[in-house]
Amino acid sequence: MINFTKFENIDLANSLIEKALAFKVDPRVNQNKGNGKRIGLIFLNPSLRTRMSTQLAASNLGVESFVLNMDKESWALEMQDGVVMNQNKVEHIRDAAAVLGGYFDILAIRAFPTLTNKEEDISDFVINQFIKYSGVPVISLESAIRHPLQSLADMVTIRENFKEKRKPKVVLTWAPHIKAIPHAVANSFSEWAIGCDYDLTITHPHGYELDKKFTNGATIEYDQTKALADADFVYVKNWSAFTPYGKILSVTGDWLLNEDKFGDNTHAKVMHCLPVRRNLELSDEILDGKRSLVQNQAKNRIFAAQAVIDTML
Amino acid sequence: MINFTKFENIDLANSLIEKALAFKVDPRVNQNKGNGKRIGLIFLNPSLRTRMSTQLAASNLGVESFVLNMDKESWALEMQDGVVMNQNKVEHIRDAAAVLGGYFDILAIRAFPTLTNKEEDISDFVINQFIKYSGVPVISLESAIRHPLQSLADMVTIRENFKEKRKPKVVLTWAPHIKAIPHAVANSFSEWAIGCDYDLTITHPHGYELDKKFTNGATIEYDQTKALADADFVYVKNWSAFTPYGKILSVTGDWLLNEDKFGDNTHAKVMHCLPVRRNLELSDEILDGKRSLVQNQAKNRIFAAQAVIDTML
Amino acid sequence: MINFTKFENIDLANSLIEKALAFKVDPRVNQNKGNGKRIGLIFLNPSLRTRMSTQLAASNLGVESFVLNMDKESWALEMQDGVVMNQNKVEHIRDAAAVLGGYFDILAIRAFPTLTNKEEDISDFVINQFIKYSGVPVISLESAIRHPLQSLADMVTIRENFKEKRKPKVVLTWAPHIKAIPHAVANSFSEWAIGCDYDLTITHPHGYELDKKFTNGATIEYDQTKALADADFVYVKNWSAFTPYGKILSVTGDWLLNEDKFGDNTHAKVMHCLPVRRNLELSDEILDGKRSLVQNQAKNRIFAAQAVIDTML
Repeated sequence: MINFTKFENIDLANSLIEKALAFKVDPRVNQNKGNGKRIGLIFLNPSLRTRMSTQLAASNLGVESFVLNMDKESWALEMQDGVVMNQNKVEHIRDAAAVLGGYFDILAIRAFPTLTNKEEDISDFVINQFIKYSGVPVISLESAIRHPLQSLADMVTIRENFKEKRKPKVVLTWAPHIKAIPHAVANSFSEWAIGCDYDLTITHPHGYELDKKFTNGATIEYDQTKALADADFVYVKNWSAFTPYGKILSVTGDWLLNEDKFGDNTHAKVMHCLPVRRNLELSDEILDGKRSLVQNQAKNRIFAAQAVIDTML
Repeated sequence: MINFTKFENIDLANSLIEKALAFKVDPRVNQNKGNGKRIGLIFLNPSLRTRMSTQLAASNLGVESFVLNMDKESWALEMQDGVVMNQNKVEHIRDAAAVLGGYFDILAIRAFPTLTNKEEDISDFVINQFIKYSGVPVISLESAIRHPLQSLADMVTIRENFKEKRKPKVVLTWAPHIKAIPHAVANSFSEWAIGCDYDLTITHPHGYELDKKFTNGATIEYDQTKALADADFVYVKNWSAFTPYGKILSVTGDWLLNEDKFGDNTHAKVMHCLPVRRNLELSDEILDGKRSLVQNQAKNRIFAAQAVIDTML
Repeated sequence: MINFTKFENIDLANSLIEKALAFKVDPRVNQNKGNGKRIGLIFLNPSLRTRMSTQLAASNLGVESFVLNMDKESWALEMQDGVVMNQNKVEHIRDAAAVLGGYFDILAIRAFPTLTNKEEDISDFVINQFIKYSGVPVISLESAIRHPLQSLADMVTIRENFKEKRKPKVVLTWAPHIKAIPHAVANSFSEWAIGCDYDLTITHPHGYELDKKFTNGATIEYDQTKALADADFVYVKNWSAFTPYGKILSVTGDWLLNEDKFGDNTHAKVMHCLPVRRNLELSDEILDGKRSLVQNQAKNRIFAAQAVIDTML
């Protein structure tokens, strides 16, 4: 593993999951391993959980972390090569990434999609430009199309909550929202669940099909109730349409996940990456009840990041 | 002491004051006491002095501090239970507080009042929601109705500047301002001065009476000159009206505190929590003269916070 | 050296350059020298490179650094003495600087010019008010008229890239831009290059003459090609007019620096403080080619700051 931007293979995934679980038991076991090392956390978009959990992970390993919020207009980066920079972009990513690569041992970067330029977004253009020009290992803190630290934390959460020998049945269910939301969490969860050889079903309204690149191997089921029937884990997430790109479509039926939808499935656990819109995506009764693993997931973000940084060191 | 959000009793207050004075003499005496502990400083409103002094206090104890500015629109928190979150609030305080409680050993939070919803403000709703849902000890960095770290620093400042056997005579005087200012500093100062058994007089224009909950035991004197006559300490502060709530009333007379107001009282010291509007609240001659304790107060903020964190550890 | 705000003398400059070069070889050689010391980095304007490099420098010396962004409206500082503060400024620099001086061992401050009040700007009013009222050593992170940490890093870069016995020929060339840019980098570079006894030529369009205070001793050459002919180092930088102050003038000729301008000068190195507007100030071919020292300069910012902080300790 040179960079951490996506699911690579099941052996690496298993090794990271086991490492994360070990750090959860003893967070400071490698507390001097990263002494003298520095990680730069670069945010082109806002963050709270991701920033905090990654800083705590770094601290647990003795790595010094520095946060750079570059989401303000004044630090707008030019991403395209060869242009005459006579507009509002003040610095080219070639120069900024190279400087940051010279300052830090590891760079971690958050770069959301535009949701308007499909071709650029699906090529994961921004994070790839950083990788190309920084010259140091790069960790994705959520790119245009993936959120691998979230997915690793999700896999850790499933692992610690499923002790049976069979494959867990995992359901990814679309949920309502009022804004056009990126596909990154849904793409990554699908990529990792399939990669980890879980039995994955994705349920969503017609029109909300994700990029097949991430869902090959999953069952698509348009009837939410049917999909939930024998689920072990239900992952709730909104995303905007992939075609037409980044749009909110009109939807028939009620996609809010509440207790009624589970019928006699009393054992299914419910997951969400947070922040969650209560009573729009997920009901209070579920979030505050026994099914909910959302706080476990949030806590596991620390140990997922710690496993990745530890492996890079 | 589980949380630090208000004056509790005189024994605890005295113990914190003595501890703060000891830290002022030797700031690093407990420099490893907090090793491995982490405090999250959460700001729903801007801060400079409070943030810096609390971070320095934590550092003096070996506690790692992390700052989270949640005052931007993008992290707007829903505070009300049971609502359908289909508006502009992106995360519920139940979820955010629980995550943060899982990440940190202590949380410190700043949450100013709205000055428009009196009932919610006087119930100290926001900080109490954090306490309810975070599951870890909480320090107030100024809530809707109190600013206890400021008041503790103020008590430390009075203690180190008053060596007589009798009770000090303390005067809280209203000062002019151009904005509607919260009651928190005035409430807390009154609560702590009375709680510490000082002789407190509050002077302000008619209509600026504070919530009696905080001023029971104080003398109210509408004639500023009379109030100042034999004062040992004069605390200058603006606040908006409590009834009608959060309003600026028209005032007769001149309430700017300057040297003329003191008559033949040459010994009184002057305090202000800063930031101060020079020559509107307080004259340059006083701020830059021998009466002023404002820099002592600002410095003591470090040791007040340090005493509180040390006691929590 | 009490404060670090400008070029003082060649002995001090040489000593800082040598120290910076030594730190580049072994950044952690004095890693415990600053233990227990704290530096406050105060930004009245945005920063990325300066903030990061100064924090890394502090960390290399065991100095704890704290960043204070005071560029938001809510912390607007009153700079003028004696005024009645009944407008939008919330705190006076006398009070803020004194508090910060009480909290930190060293203060570093960035305060850009207004480019509208020439008299105030050229007196370096803001940083001088900080020095006057803070009571601790102050480092300039770029003031209204100078950027000495950048210039020190530039001198370090020239030193490590010029091994001949003769004086290096250094050219400062004006470059196009779309905004009105301060004079600080150009002033400081000129001040330091002349102070270090280099052979300095400044080339710019008519009307862009810098304040003579900084350029006395330099050759002014209005023909860019002629200036570049036998240059060893070419420093590219835009600045606005000094008279009329802060204005962008219409310019004849092409001032973009590209390879064609160099004729048969194959050895000249090109410098820029970054951020650079590619293909407006400097061509891609130069920035990405062998002439470019811009990444060296950026890296040397760490060791320049480290030399200054180390000397202050």
